[in-house]
Amino acid sequence: MPNPERDIFPMKVGNPNCTVALVFLYIFLSLPAVAQTPPLKTPPAFSPELREQLQAIRDAALKSDYAWQQLAHLTEKIGPRPAGSPGAQAAVEYVVGQLKSLGLEVHLEPAQVSHWVRGEEKAELTEYSGQTNKTPRHIVLTAISGSSATPSDGFTAEVVVVHSFDELAALGREKVAGKIVLYNVPYDERKALAGSAFEAYGEAVVYRSDGATKAVALGAVASLIRSVGGANFRLPHTGHSEPAGIPAAALAAEDADLIDHLAAEGPVRMHLTLTPQDFGKAASYNVVADLKGSEHPEQIVIVSGHLDSWDLGQGAIDDGAGVVMAMEAAEVLQRLHLRPRRTLRVIAWMDEENGGGGNQAYGKDHAAEMTNHIAAIESDAGAAHPIGFAMKMAPEALASLRPVADVLRPIGATLFHSVNGSPGSDIEPLVKAGVPGIGIIQDGRHYFDYHHSAADTLDKVDPQELKENAAAMAVMGYALAAMPEALPKDQTK
Amino acid sequence: MPNPERDIFPMKVGNPNCTVALVFLYIFLSLPAVAQTPPLKTPPAFSPELREQLQAIRDAALKSDYAWQQLAHLTEKIGPRPAGSPGAQAAVEYVVGQLKSLGLEVHLEPAQVSHWVRGEEKAELTEYSGQTNKTPRHIVLTAISGSSATPSDGFTAEVVVVHSFDELAALGREKVAGKIVLYNVPYDERKALAGSAFEAYGEAVVYRSDGATKAVALGAVASLIRSVGGANFRLPHTGHSEPAGIPAAALAAEDADLIDHLAAEGPVRMHLTLTPQDFGKAASYNVVADLKGSEHPEQIVIVSGHLDSWDLGQGAIDDGAGVVMAMEAAEVLQRLHLRPRRTLRVIAWMDEENGGGGNQAYGKDHAAEMTNHIAAIESDAGAAHPIGFAMKMAPEALASLRPVADVLRPIGATLFHSVNGSPGSDIEPLVKAGVPGIGIIQDGRHYFDYHHSAADTLDKVDPQELKENAAAMAVMGYALAAMPEALPKDQTK
Repeated sequence: MPNPERDIFPMKVGNPNCTVALVFLYIFLSLPAVAQTPPLKTPPAFSPELREQLQAIRDAALKSDYAWQQLAHLTEKIGPRPAGSPGAQAAVEYVVGQLKSLGLEVHLEPAQVSHWVRGEEKAELTEYSGQTNKTPRHIVLTAISGSSATPSDGFTAEVVVVHSFDELAALGREKVAGKIVLYNVPYDERKALAGSAFEAYGEAVVYRSDGATKAVALGAVASLIRSVGGANFRLPHTGHSEPAGIPAAALAAEDADLIDHLAAEGPVRMHLTLTPQDFGKAASYNVVADLKGSEHPEQIVIVSGHLDSWDLGQGAIDDGAGVVMAMEAAEVLQRLHLRPRRTLRVIAWMDEENGGGGNQAYGKDHAAEMTNHIAAIESDAGAAHPIGFAMKMAPEALASLRPVADVLRPIGATLFHSVNGSPGSDIEPLVKAGVPGIGIIQDGRHYFDYHHSAADTLDKVDPQELKENAAAMAVMGYALAAMPEALPKDQTK
Repeated sequence: MPNPERDIFPMKVGNPNCTVALVFLYIFLSLPAVAQTPPLKTPPAFSPELREQLQAIRDAALKSDYAWQQLAHLTEKIGPRPAGSPGAQAAVEYVVGQLKSLGLEVHLEPAQVSHWVRGEEKAELTEYSGQTNKTPRHIVLTAISGSSATPSDGFTAEVVVVHSFDELAALGREKVAGKIVLYNVPYDERKALAGSAFEAYGEAVVYRSDGATKAVALGAVASLIRSVGGANFRLPHTGHSEPAGIPAAALAAEDADLIDHLAAEGPVRMHLTLTPQDFGKAASYNVVADLKGSEHPEQIVIVSGHLDSWDLGQGAIDDGAGVVMAMEAAEVLQRLHLRPRRTLRVIAWMDEENGGGGNQAYGKDHAAEMTNHIAAIESDAGAAHPIGFAMKMAPEALASLRPVADVLRPIGATLFHSVNGSPGSDIEPLVKAGVPGIGIIQDGRHYFDYHHSAADTLDKVDPQELKENAAAMAVMGYALAAMPEALPKDQTK
């Protein structure tokens, strides 16, 4: 039986279920999260006026289809938005126009971003033990970003299958050199369904990020992984990987299993063609739009998502959704004529997916102003039902936000989980500089079913759940910008 | 609340829930099924010896992994088996060898089958209203079998979207001529989840089979459908369609929706390349293997599935599973040294998917022996949990099989649904000749999620559920072959 107390903020001191209940939200393998129990002292209550404003913001966001319309435009009218692409540039221009039309002060902040373009990609098994059907067996795969290109007509090599880095190391150079390494390490879908999707992701994604590097060290000629994702529909999932000078790709789960089974009985040979092009760095932009604060315009609260996406889908759940939540936060405040004490800054980050050029530029360009950054919110885990927030901040800061949970209780976003790592990869430079960081925690059970795949499309977002998320971001953003005292900084970082 | 009585054989006379509970099993749009209440007279009981044999068969099949091993070979070692392909030929040879090694009398029966080979297939949206991203939008699709080829470098035309044949007719030649027609008619996934998957399929598949014919009649230059399938993972589902002299393909559901949305705002132009080749008819075979009857070897009970598959996946649920269930029926009888009165004939049909060449040849070649065909069983609806049988036979014939339900009660295959159409497309020529026909009814909720797609792979079959199905086919097949009196013929056909 679920313990209802454990799922409602505030967590009780000494409740042993807290650790169990933790959603480990760590993007790109930041440190595992750890439960921190808030201090016992009663936080200051929000004024009745602020509470009413927050309720009005919540209700306005829940009734608005602004975020949905924005998301529909980004995903269907503009489409894929990989960094450096015409789609990304079109999205930048579109978001600038929309935020200007809301009355915000909008500017572009230049960033050097990765510019990588997918090419042809195909693979076939040409020989395997017990083969009686001479038709080459088609293998479904997609290149990952660190991939080098094969010759345009591909090459053929034997595939060696491993299930861990240890197994690869045990094989040694003698059995790996000249071969294609396939890491068949499943994303643990049952772990995801049990509420720990990001932990399941983290356990598998190391093979995507580092697999080629470790394979080439033993002389491999290509590195393949099983796609990091759930729901097996012969769908490959792309993503970032460290360049290692060899071709690298992600196979559909079914194809990884097929090769694994065949290789258990004898040598398997694959003909592999991947022709991606890495154009190095390109100039692009973060979109930065301010709703200036009435009392402390120099103090900044960021609401954000990332505008770039992978190229295979439409970038709906990753992360058009996060961008439009942030846009909705500004739209609601303008519509309700609410001007917070501090500046609410909407940021649509560029190149989260393939190197983080956007957030790195922001961290560098604003290094001198970090003390003025009161908090940074990012949503980058989809748009499913929001259950709360992952928070990297001092315990007293977290405690001071407790009244927000009361306002969000009707939509369920009441869990306030203290985490050790950054709760969003774009806000990581800020968090590392001591700025309190907040990520929205969504129901993540099916996030990785679509993540980084061609199936990340608008229909995967539920309009009502998007409204809930927009409400959560707007309420949290406004609370941070309107609270009488600025959120205390984390002294423990 | 479910009425438990309605789900257990025998159905009660006058129970109004019977009709509601019907699973409409009609492949290729045979006539809708209709409930027929069995007569009230008590059927003859099976002898204790026969009952014990059936229980032993059931238990042996439930413990056996023979069917799974056979399915693994067909799907993973051999792979796709489209009619006329090397894969189909390899499968024929393999199944012959396996059935011979079981001690059956095996022969090949020639059939003329369709020989169609998929070519290149790609599509892009090149222009649409409000386009700011100039990168062509990639559209996921796959050719269907009646497709003509485009020029090798494709052609470009405007897409007109309709949602029914009536809507197409209302547009008329003026608005259709020279354009690509897209039928965006969804497979009703909720209907499938409610237990009527085949009805949902039937409602949508008419656009696949007849869409191009109706489109070309108004001057269309290509015909596209929304894939007939559930679970939207950017996965196109192929299938048979009537050749109409124009290119024809099935889009992933997401792509059909995208074009529909964009076309609602202005003209959408697509560049379409499809280069399938139709090689006309090729020589192939049904595999026919007899376990001769001890008393009436001339009397035949068929257990069967179809060996051919579509080319995109491995043909696991459609219909390697049906073939291995039939093989398991023979294997269990041989292992238990059970020789029925009549001949049990295992048939692995060829070309069910693309024209039915195999079953047509059998119907023609055996036309004079139809009175000796006592019954024909086919499984062609996957390998999920079996819930019973779709039966086309006289009411007294159905009633005489009631004791089988008792034997199968532990595995749940107890529903005996009388249907009007053939319960399997390969046994349709037999059924039309008056031979009682039986199809296994599986839990069909997710069958069409994978059906005819690249995701029809071995992992979609649950080993335990495959055993249940093999047990159901073996028990039903043996009962029909071993009953003291042959099943009465249907006089009403």
